[in-house]
Amino acid sequence: MKACTEYLTFNTRKRVEIVNITSRVEEIVKKSGIQEGFVLVSAMHITASVFINDDEEGFREDLLRMLSSIAPQDGSYRHNLTGEDNGYAHMWNILVHHEVIVPVTGGQLDLGPWQRIFYGEWDGRRPKRLVIKVMGV
Amino acid sequence: MKACTEYLTFNTRKRVEIVNITSRVEEIVKKSGIQEGFVLVSAMHITASVFINDDEEGFREDLLRMLSSIAPQDGSYRHNLTGEDNGYAHMWNILVHHEVIVPVTGGQLDLGPWQRIFYGEWDGRRPKRLVIKVMGV
Amino acid sequence: MKACTEYLTFNTRKRVEIVNITSRVEEIVKKSGIQEGFVLVSAMHITASVFINDDEEGFREDLLRMLSSIAPQDGSYRHNLTGEDNGYAHMWNILVHHEVIVPVTGGQLDLGPWQRIFYGEWDGRRPKRLVIKVMGV
Repeated sequence: MKACTEYLTFNTRKRVEIVNITSRVEEIVKKSGIQEGFVLVSAMHITASVFINDDEEGFREDLLRMLSSIAPQDGSYRHNLTGEDNGYAHMWNILVHHEVIVPVTGGQLDLGPWQRIFYGEWDGRRPKRLVIKVMGV
Repeated sequence: MKACTEYLTFNTRKRVEIVNITSRVEEIVKKSGIQEGFVLVSAMHITASVFINDDEEGFREDLLRMLSSIAPQDGSYRHNLTGEDNGYAHMWNILVHHEVIVPVTGGQLDLGPWQRIFYGEWDGRRPKRLVIKVMGV
Repeated sequence: MKACTEYLTFNTRKRVEIVNITSRVEEIVKKSGIQEGFVLVSAMHITASVFINDDEEGFREDLLRMLSSIAPQDGSYRHNLTGEDNGYAHMWNILVHHEVIVPVTGGQLDLGPWQRIFYGEWDGRRPKRLVIKVMGV
């Protein structure tokens, strides 16, 4: 059994941004040489998410609109009494989840035809990290 | 270490349907011969979910009612401007998550007494796939 | 490859309670001797969650307020017609998810600087279990 760990750093231009990271995860899986196993893709921050869905602009807008309707960016948060202003981003992290596990089969990401992996930055414009860990044979 | 991968295909009669797949996952774990490890159960489509909860009709109704209250089936979605009418189903995929990992201990699914594994079809009446991958020793 | 499985039991004083379990997960990872792998932390009940976020009181209040706004504790649930009164707790289990996978790197939990692991009890005051399974080399 082998394990291979890599870290990506994001520093988005916008505060809220969704980035397609599928090809970067693919490269790391290839580099690992692992043929059968799992790859974990996990945000290391509590105001970001990793998720799988469609690479479609309308979907991204719908997602941000839904998250804003549940936990508005300018809403009132107890967390913001600490001096922060990212209370909403903690809620979005929970609602969207911070990680995915993708099966690696025959050395490839075993995704469905439309599935792409995204990093959801909910409080960006500063360096934030993500861990990718492949484990298998 | 061994890995064993199987795919299930669903073609539900209703557009929205929740299917108990626990025994099918159990069979695949048994067939794999793996005694200690993890089994990943993951929807390969972006308008479906996999989740764990109670096998109780009231729960299923409550879940669909909650999802509809957040993202109504007949709501207005930017995604639907592509010609699709399943914008809501993409939101439900995100809210419920598309996968679970279950520990395999002593060759069995290591679930709590009431935990069952469900496939949540949010836009069915066509063939859709799910991947089950067991990894361990 | 090794696997190591432990169970924790919680019996919270309050019905709804959030417990920081990071150090307990760390201990189990150390005890396992696994240097590279994954640790799964998963609630074995359908009215509890496991999640990662900030160890900050304001965040915890915001989370409970958000969950209550989507699925109120005193709301009307079909599930409660079975004689239960925890319909809301099943919804919170789904919204927050019931498990996390944390990478183990160099024998340590590979978490970001603010990430802590929490058990979210949504219907407590009775014994409830959680499984922690480490797998790796």
